[in-house]
Amino acid sequence: MRLSRYFLPVLKETPSEAQIVSHRYMLRAGMIKQASAGIYSWLPLGFKVLRKIENIVHEEQARAGHIAIQMPTMQSADLWRESGRYDAYGQEMLRMKDRHDRDMLFTPTAEELVTDIFRSHVGSYKDLPLTLYQIQWKFRDEIRPRFGVMRGREFYMKDGYNFDLTKEDALHAYNRHLVSYLRTYERMGLQAIPMRADSGPIGGDNTHEFLVLADTGESEVFYDAQITDLTFGSREIDYDSHAECQAVLEEFTSRYARTDETHDEALFNEVPEERRRTARGIEVGQIFYFGTKYSEAMGATVADSDGNRVPVHMGSHGIGVSRLVGAIIEASHDDKGIIWPEGVTPFHCGIVNLKQGDEEADGACEALYASLTALGLEPLYDDRNERAGAKFAGMDLIGLPWRITVGPRGLKNGVVELTSRRTGTSEELPPEQAIERIAQIYGRAAV
Amino acid sequence: MRLSRYFLPVLKETPSEAQIVSHRYMLRAGMIKQASAGIYSWLPLGFKVLRKIENIVHEEQARAGHIAIQMPTMQSADLWRESGRYDAYGQEMLRMKDRHDRDMLFTPTAEELVTDIFRSHVGSYKDLPLTLYQIQWKFRDEIRPRFGVMRGREFYMKDGYNFDLTKEDALHAYNRHLVSYLRTYERMGLQAIPMRADSGPIGGDNTHEFLVLADTGESEVFYDAQITDLTFGSREIDYDSHAECQAVLEEFTSRYARTDETHDEALFNEVPEERRRTARGIEVGQIFYFGTKYSEAMGATVADSDGNRVPVHMGSHGIGVSRLVGAIIEASHDDKGIIWPEGVTPFHCGIVNLKQGDEEADGACEALYASLTALGLEPLYDDRNERAGAKFAGMDLIGLPWRITVGPRGLKNGVVELTSRRTGTSEELPPEQAIERIAQIYGRAAV
Repeated sequence: MRLSRYFLPVLKETPSEAQIVSHRYMLRAGMIKQASAGIYSWLPLGFKVLRKIENIVHEEQARAGHIAIQMPTMQSADLWRESGRYDAYGQEMLRMKDRHDRDMLFTPTAEELVTDIFRSHVGSYKDLPLTLYQIQWKFRDEIRPRFGVMRGREFYMKDGYNFDLTKEDALHAYNRHLVSYLRTYERMGLQAIPMRADSGPIGGDNTHEFLVLADTGESEVFYDAQITDLTFGSREIDYDSHAECQAVLEEFTSRYARTDETHDEALFNEVPEERRRTARGIEVGQIFYFGTKYSEAMGATVADSDGNRVPVHMGSHGIGVSRLVGAIIEASHDDKGIIWPEGVTPFHCGIVNLKQGDEEADGACEALYASLTALGLEPLYDDRNERAGAKFAGMDLIGLPWRITVGPRGLKNGVVELTSRRTGTSEELPPEQAIERIAQIYGRAAV
Repeated sequence: MRLSRYFLPVLKETPSEAQIVSHRYMLRAGMIKQASAGIYSWLPLGFKVLRKIENIVHEEQARAGHIAIQMPTMQSADLWRESGRYDAYGQEMLRMKDRHDRDMLFTPTAEELVTDIFRSHVGSYKDLPLTLYQIQWKFRDEIRPRFGVMRGREFYMKDGYNFDLTKEDALHAYNRHLVSYLRTYERMGLQAIPMRADSGPIGGDNTHEFLVLADTGESEVFYDAQITDLTFGSREIDYDSHAECQAVLEEFTSRYARTDETHDEALFNEVPEERRRTARGIEVGQIFYFGTKYSEAMGATVADSDGNRVPVHMGSHGIGVSRLVGAIIEASHDDKGIIWPEGVTPFHCGIVNLKQGDEEADGACEALYASLTALGLEPLYDDRNERAGAKFAGMDLIGLPWRITVGPRGLKNGVVELTSRRTGTSEELPPEQAIERIAQIYGRAAV
């Protein structure tokens, strides 16, 4: 993309309403614009990141064998009366009447609707296990929305639902989600720690939240320092193997890690003192096993191998897709702006032309642009007639992990400059080597 | 995908509520399930098609230089009061109050919000031309929703908005959209004819609807038969060239083609009688130029080169993404089921194992599955223990354009059967040649 043809409305001033860094940078970098309280429009740069995160979630869900569907945002109140949650949900549920005076709502979650889909179409244990998920806009009418997309009212969320014959199978689905979420977050450059959590209005005993450590987190967290040494890495997991998934769960949840909601001081004190940590965390996902709560209430049964109808065991599992955009920024920024992890960066690298209009500089930039594009990469080329300082400041603010700087002086020596946003270190090298390096970083075969 | 691990709830009976073929087949093929009146859940097969269509739209919008954003579904009533449409819109607009008693609505279209984004961030003619678009769920509270996703209440739509300094530039944006839509529909295997239309509540003089001819179309259409001979084909268009886009517009709109709303009997009679056609059509898109209607009402101005503030010229342009799923089926089916065009098929080909459990047949199917997957293609492998007739009927119903049938008898002679869903013709050939043919059809390099 050429910046002269893009829509990147960067702000010079920090908007006064933004209290946390992700909100400030998302507004300043032209990623979002508030439409009304807690409701945002995603401008081009923000939408690109949102879509990258969405795609990673889809890919990792597919890898785990989960199947994508899409449920509507508007639901009839009827199903929610069947489960008993229509009255229980309170004012966070946005309710309305349609033109025929029927009670409708903007779905905050979809246990009822997916259970209805299941009971309408699945009748035998032979069709299990089954996990359906969607990525869809949700609405929760927060009384005091704040922190930008971190606690908005309309938000984009992955919500998945497993249906299993037995508790054991459903707990495997739970573990499978835990494994898949670890992979998902790591691909986004995040360390998200599973912590024992409180089940809230979804119900159920087994639940973990995934928390990203950040000073601005809304939860106080308590954990054993050993836990931050764990990484999922590139290990290959057979998602069908109960044992392999169970082993990952044990590895990542056996050490103490809890939020203030479930914190147990006595247990925490059993952790050696030098490893006890208190910090703040941002919740970016949660998994639940809640057994037959909804299947019994709504008659979602299957015939088992003896022909008896039994209610299925279920769980639900969420990833806050739009919230992750904020969480990643909270975890990865400096005082100049955002620092995108390579996995979610809106553009793979920036190209800064130090002397727009100079024939040689323009030509070198165009050649870099063409070569990177041919590799299937998306560069953002700042081709505006601006001074270098403004171009650098803009690139630092929007946080592309790599920048290639092209100027007449370097070109005389046959080199351009490759700069890492994270470390700030620069290196002069011939353009074709810069391309090779970028290709390598993103795992593309050089052409 | 292996069918044994998929969720494809095919119905044997035709649901009685479905009056048109696309609705019937979408229900029977397990693509959608009604959640409430005019509101559908997209089951896995339906969601895959929806997503393919969405991706084609994104790709073609990017090619035309249009920039993707995402606006919220819930909007405050305030902006709509500013444009004067809040009261004008009537009962089709779904309205509600949030917990703080503020008037909200589920957006049926987004001229107001996008104009607000524009006026907040753009101030100079130098930032023009600019076209922003989104693909987002919309809601129109149809009094009598019917025909499945063709006239639902919650629907998925691409809506794009151009901002230009002059009428001439805005008309170029109009033409550019027309060109881009022609390409978009053709990639989906559709012939969509631009017809002069009525502007309705959006306002404006210049507007064309794109109609797909189909017996079940809601509009009566009148056209010169020559128009159906036109194809956009693989021509390369410079979307920046006013002349090139204008030429396409003239080519595709100079012959008589109108819906009943704008039909002019006298003009129609000037078409030679043997070329006069009356038919029915499904609207799958519409483009508008409406000038300064919203920019004046909402103060969306830029400084021109003399420093004077002038209201921008705008247009809006829509593609009915979820409706297209139905329209494609209306245009492409037979009495056995759907026939997907290659561009939007949910899976690239089916693999039918005639003797599940037979070592050789299973092995050959697995090898085909692995080879096709390695090419980046998605086969659907019917690995269930079902009789051949049921497998064929299922494949015919869901409409994958190509099927590879594998059985012990063929394998003895070293062949499998490759069948075209559209023509019904089959050919016996060695497995590796079948793969090569499929790869060729989808433009993949053989491995």
